[in-house]
Amino acid sequence: MATLKVPATVPSPSEDAEQLRKAFAGWGTNEALIISILGHRTAARRRAIRQAYHQTYNEDLLKSLDGEISGDFERAVLLWTLDPAERDAWLANEAVRKWRPGNRVLIEIACARSSRELFAVRQAYHARFKRSLEEDVAAHTTGDFRKLLVPLVSAYRYENAEVNLTLAKSEAKMLHEKISGKAYNHEDLIRILATRSKAQLVATFNYYNDEFGNSVNKDLKCDPKDEFLAALRAAIRCICFPERYFEKVIRSAINGLRTEENALTRVITTCAEVDLKEIAEVYQKRNSMPLEHAIKGDTTGDYEAMLLALLGQEA
Amino acid sequence: MATLKVPATVPSPSEDAEQLRKAFAGWGTNEALIISILGHRTAARRRAIRQAYHQTYNEDLLKSLDGEISGDFERAVLLWTLDPAERDAWLANEAVRKWRPGNRVLIEIACARSSRELFAVRQAYHARFKRSLEEDVAAHTTGDFRKLLVPLVSAYRYENAEVNLTLAKSEAKMLHEKISGKAYNHEDLIRILATRSKAQLVATFNYYNDEFGNSVNKDLKCDPKDEFLAALRAAIRCICFPERYFEKVIRSAINGLRTEENALTRVITTCAEVDLKEIAEVYQKRNSMPLEHAIKGDTTGDYEAMLLALLGQEA
Repeated sequence: MATLKVPATVPSPSEDAEQLRKAFAGWGTNEALIISILGHRTAARRRAIRQAYHQTYNEDLLKSLDGEISGDFERAVLLWTLDPAERDAWLANEAVRKWRPGNRVLIEIACARSSRELFAVRQAYHARFKRSLEEDVAAHTTGDFRKLLVPLVSAYRYENAEVNLTLAKSEAKMLHEKISGKAYNHEDLIRILATRSKAQLVATFNYYNDEFGNSVNKDLKCDPKDEFLAALRAAIRCICFPERYFEKVIRSAINGLRTEENALTRVITTCAEVDLKEIAEVYQKRNSMPLEHAIKGDTTGDYEAMLLALLGQEA
Repeated sequence: MATLKVPATVPSPSEDAEQLRKAFAGWGTNEALIISILGHRTAARRRAIRQAYHQTYNEDLLKSLDGEISGDFERAVLLWTLDPAERDAWLANEAVRKWRPGNRVLIEIACARSSRELFAVRQAYHARFKRSLEEDVAAHTTGDFRKLLVPLVSAYRYENAEVNLTLAKSEAKMLHEKISGKAYNHEDLIRILATRSKAQLVATFNYYNDEFGNSVNKDLKCDPKDEFLAALRAAIRCICFPERYFEKVIRSAINGLRTEENALTRVITTCAEVDLKEIAEVYQKRNSMPLEHAIKGDTTGDYEAMLLALLGQEA
């Protein structure tokens, strides 16, 4: 469930656009006003506000924001204001351009979204970057990562709950064989992970656990420094337990020596209208502390206020 | 352009459904009536007729047809009656289940359709077969063919005409290097073919031709018996010259020792509403004979009449 809180009566998009324009006017910027508007509007409404703003002031709202605010606060507001598919396309493009093996953004977008959402990202990628997502991923990654990432971002998985148990057993055995033989980049392992439906994969991993005594991810943890193994584990977690996956991203972002604001911003902005409520619940259970407390302790100012607004909390 | 001829005034879908029901009634079947209706209706109209037929008689029109007609005529009528995306999904599934290296159907569907059409096929495949197209392709093919076919059927190529000439040059050189070294299954060769936009690939192949003196396809013809090389050539022809590709499929189907009705039916039914006019023109130029004459000489009866109807000709 979403954490976003929208007021009972919402001003019209053109009223919101006008208020935003006021927030930019004169000396300084009224950040609180920006948060009170954009931090409490649905994706459809934010799109309408952008349109109204463009119509009235002949300027892109994102450009205006870019001139007024900065730093982590700016990144949070800009990412949040984008449509979900546009936002993912933008994040995917950034990940591709600066690609390094430890980057999990492409895996998140490929594996934690629904098939329809991932396809919408591919369409938004065409529109914005004049290339295909898989084309850029294939051109900017190499080796085993390319073998894994290209089919993951190109997938259009079947989405119903039907499961073929015979297939789950035979593919669990196949996975166990490859993993035991340390053939982590084997084409059958990647094929199964990149093409089967999520329901089918859950059944396969359950059978794996029952039959071989360990979870797939435990068996894939033999070398904690191996980034490719970490990528496989991330894909499996995004497919089977997205809330737990995102909780861990938030936890690592907050608990590190330096807070990783980009990771925190990414999870909050991409999940606030989807399943941030469940992620926050997992967080509280795992860390014995509400997520909003952790965020208050680790961030400051307008950035903090924006994240808390998306979490449905007062600053 | 399409060859399909639709009368100036078309009866309502329910009138057409009623006439079809009459064609099935009593002793024998009125094949000419079936052709005169279905052979002269657009995809949207055929869909409406199926709906009207189902509403009135509580039976799927395709099932009724299946009980009334048979052989090549039946296959042509059934394939034609399906929606384009449904038809491609059905053909792809048949190709996957009976897969052998010489089968070109998956390559045609992946490379000769637009990005949006290919995605519609993947959606229709979900709806009909409860699995994804790429999942079935990956599970039923092996080796180099799998490496080629899975990314081809998963592609969502960028579709505008923009071309990056620097990239075309560097990738033409890369292709030449791989082909000269006989590394036909090299991942970079497959990556380029499966992910770049068609406009970009045409530019790359043109540069290849200019720089290295032969067309890519000529250089890929070194071993005419190698089915993988033939598959690469088919993909390139479907991307760059679909009309020439389909003309050759028709020519081989007609000129073989035995007419290959399935190939003939496939091309006529899939292209009649798209570009069969251009294909027929290429055929006439290449064979000094109108396509309809060749079809008259090689087929008979209701099957012949159905193909000619789709070609916009009288039997």
